[in-house]
Amino acid sequence: MLDFRPILFIVGTLLSTLAVAMCVPAATDLVVGHEDWRAFVISALVTLFFGVSLILTNRVEPFRISLRQAFVVTSLSWLALTVFAALPFAFSGLGLSYTDAFFEAMSGITTTGSTVITNLGAAPPGLLLWRALLQWMGGIGIIVMAMAILPVLQVGGMQLFRLESSDRSDKALPRATQLAAAIGGVYLVLTLICTWLYWLFGMTGFEAIAHAMTTISTAGFSTADASIGHFNSGPIDVVATIFMLLGSLPFVLYLQFVKGNVLALLRDSQVQWFFAVVAAAILAMFFWLWLRNGLPPGISLRYASFNVVSVITGTGYATADYWLWGTFAVTMFFLLMFTGGCAGSTTCGIKIFRYQVLYQTARAQMGRLLQPHGVFVAYYNGRPISEQVQVSVMAFFFVYVLSFAVLAMGLGLTGLDFLTCISGAATALANVGPGLGEQIGPAGNFSQLPDTAKWLLSAGMLIGRLELFTVLILLVPSFWTD
Amino acid sequence: MLDFRPILFIVGTLLSTLAVAMCVPAATDLVVGHEDWRAFVISALVTLFFGVSLILTNRVEPFRISLRQAFVVTSLSWLALTVFAALPFAFSGLGLSYTDAFFEAMSGITTTGSTVITNLGAAPPGLLLWRALLQWMGGIGIIVMAMAILPVLQVGGMQLFRLESSDRSDKALPRATQLAAAIGGVYLVLTLICTWLYWLFGMTGFEAIAHAMTTISTAGFSTADASIGHFNSGPIDVVATIFMLLGSLPFVLYLQFVKGNVLALLRDSQVQWFFAVVAAAILAMFFWLWLRNGLPPGISLRYASFNVVSVITGTGYATADYWLWGTFAVTMFFLLMFTGGCAGSTTCGIKIFRYQVLYQTARAQMGRLLQPHGVFVAYYNGRPISEQVQVSVMAFFFVYVLSFAVLAMGLGLTGLDFLTCISGAATALANVGPGLGEQIGPAGNFSQLPDTAKWLLSAGMLIGRLELFTVLILLVPSFWTD
Repeated sequence: MLDFRPILFIVGTLLSTLAVAMCVPAATDLVVGHEDWRAFVISALVTLFFGVSLILTNRVEPFRISLRQAFVVTSLSWLALTVFAALPFAFSGLGLSYTDAFFEAMSGITTTGSTVITNLGAAPPGLLLWRALLQWMGGIGIIVMAMAILPVLQVGGMQLFRLESSDRSDKALPRATQLAAAIGGVYLVLTLICTWLYWLFGMTGFEAIAHAMTTISTAGFSTADASIGHFNSGPIDVVATIFMLLGSLPFVLYLQFVKGNVLALLRDSQVQWFFAVVAAAILAMFFWLWLRNGLPPGISLRYASFNVVSVITGTGYATADYWLWGTFAVTMFFLLMFTGGCAGSTTCGIKIFRYQVLYQTARAQMGRLLQPHGVFVAYYNGRPISEQVQVSVMAFFFVYVLSFAVLAMGLGLTGLDFLTCISGAATALANVGPGLGEQIGPAGNFSQLPDTAKWLLSAGMLIGRLELFTVLILLVPSFWTD
Repeated sequence: MLDFRPILFIVGTLLSTLAVAMCVPAATDLVVGHEDWRAFVISALVTLFFGVSLILTNRVEPFRISLRQAFVVTSLSWLALTVFAALPFAFSGLGLSYTDAFFEAMSGITTTGSTVITNLGAAPPGLLLWRALLQWMGGIGIIVMAMAILPVLQVGGMQLFRLESSDRSDKALPRATQLAAAIGGVYLVLTLICTWLYWLFGMTGFEAIAHAMTTISTAGFSTADASIGHFNSGPIDVVATIFMLLGSLPFVLYLQFVKGNVLALLRDSQVQWFFAVVAAAILAMFFWLWLRNGLPPGISLRYASFNVVSVITGTGYATADYWLWGTFAVTMFFLLMFTGGCAGSTTCGIKIFRYQVLYQTARAQMGRLLQPHGVFVAYYNGRPISEQVQVSVMAFFFVYVLSFAVLAMGLGLTGLDFLTCISGAATALANVGPGLGEQIGPAGNFSQLPDTAKWLLSAGMLIGRLELFTVLILLVPSFWTD
């Protein structure tokens, strides 16, 4: 039998933190005199009550976590945080159902950025800030998880990124905490610089803060229905593009950068591949917009860069309704959804390093076809990839495609059209934000979907965010019986 | 430097055989008095000239084939046969361009079944027979290739099906030839029984022959624009369904059946999985048609069984425009396109045994997550799957998805709509036949596509048919330089 006490203790601690975070939008609404501050205070009290109760009733000495407990606590934490993070949406004056509130909270906390709220311009500032805050906290949570937890769980090849500090020695925890704090510092500084630049180029202070938080976390909630397109500003597009890219790099490398190893980032093969893919996609889209759609070259480059980066990083901002750009563009955006950024960043999707492993494996496979007895080694970042990591990554890829298929079929049962089904499944799993088509495309939103579809998409976001296996393993009966 | 002589010798032999086959439709047109007999005779003469020239100029003693030569000869044979099989279409009175003729021939010989010919009812009998004959010959060619060549080439995990006769001993060739002859016998007998049943239930003799040839090869060319739906007959639907399924089983097991080992077929795990998947898909589709689309249960079952089997086996007949059945059905058909039947049959797609290997690998992977030092073995048909086969199959899956993405993007460049692009890429790679949507869906055809799209789709059919690696390996520079 699994001991749930340490699990519930951690969940309680996280919920208490969430309750504290709810005071920020409460204070904001109080300052501007919007009555929604009550919704935040009530939510904070409810959340705090549950959080503290869990802490008090589940103390255990000595505090230890088994592998099995680690899987449960990872999935359960995200779920519990979403359940309570949804309360302010449900209690607010917007009149969202709990389904809508849960969807919005899940979309926030997983840094997806799909929204069910229409007319954002008229939404109270506390709520807009809460959406941004959820994504910002989700973003740093993901980085820490990708750095400290997933490599130990060995999910989908993440063992490639096992730090020395994730060994089981006594020094492991302090070192990991130190590292997390340092990365949190980098995250905060990047957010502040981004805020300042947004403000410099014309956003209000509030807009700048809200957008900076959802840019660096490659998440995509905006304060306007038209997203970044609302500002229609070249410099703002450029700032967003740069900071979305910065949010997609492995944060652990920023620490080396800070320590003076300036080239560490550029020497990392995942970063190199990422920039190569981004550059190729932007170029292709640029030529398509310029030569086929007849836009001026300057505008083509600006639209192509911004929207390609927005989709590949899984941010999901939009400055144009790219659904209208023609099939090549749409097909490309569809495929870019599956790509994602680097491991150890705030991005989701399959991620660049997995494509590298898959490519290297396929390459070695080709070699073996011609020389069945030859030795062909797949390399990652100059080191041979163990057979286990290869199998791990390939199993991840297969389960990813399978999850996509099942989710798309499930959405089909709710009666949505084909394009909404497949792009909805893709965008949820990869935590991008908008899908394709008129309903959930960059110019639409998710409010009109049936409730079942919203729950399915929420599940998809969670599964995608936690790298599939972390959640799916809980569905295997032997997980609970052995 | 690769010695091309044995390669060209084999190609020459195959072309000469093709030339002889052209005499069948020539004779048919001569009997019914249609002037297209000239097109066939001219094509036959041209083909024979090239075939015999290649044979005479490329004799080599002793006759031996290296691994590298085997890859080249496999791809080159299919390509050369298509180039010449297209001639009758180009020379006929239908006035097809060579692009259209090549597309039709490739679609025939790969047993795809996509067509560019409209108004089939008015087409001359010789031409209709030639289409059926190409698919029938393609079908047996595929079975022999899957049995004798691909396991030796170790393409995409096909080494699982290495027969004892594919060892390199002196007895190998005679035994393989014997085996091929026996399987050819089974193929012929099944075709004759199918013909007889079709004729019994109301087809004309000609229609029965033409359809039997394209049913057992799970290929899908018909003599009517409305495909099997043209006959609107329950019994014919049932016969077609049964023989499409028979064409999707591993033919080598039929030999055991003939030898008296009646249960060998049913004990094969691939066959069991295949029937389980087919049954599940039919059931789901049946309930959808009955409960959601409001069709009577009898009709629902008939339509569901026939069209599910037609798509999953990659035949591509249609008895209804399932594009109009709603999103769940369409999404399901889209996914079924990727499935395919059993290895060693005439079907294409990813194939059931690969899903078994992928599933078992993912399962072992899950086990390893919980017990990092435990031993988890993936099994296929009761035997452990070697790590090499696992990697082989997973690399295949990845390259399959990648090929699909590249093909869909390529089609997007030609300006087709999104649905035509993605379903066209899927249907070509998996050799199904129709795509989805109004243009290339079950009620449409491929005649209106731009020429570039036709060439891209033809390439897709060939690559899919030859299990990707057989063709793609020729594109690796080191294949030619080493």
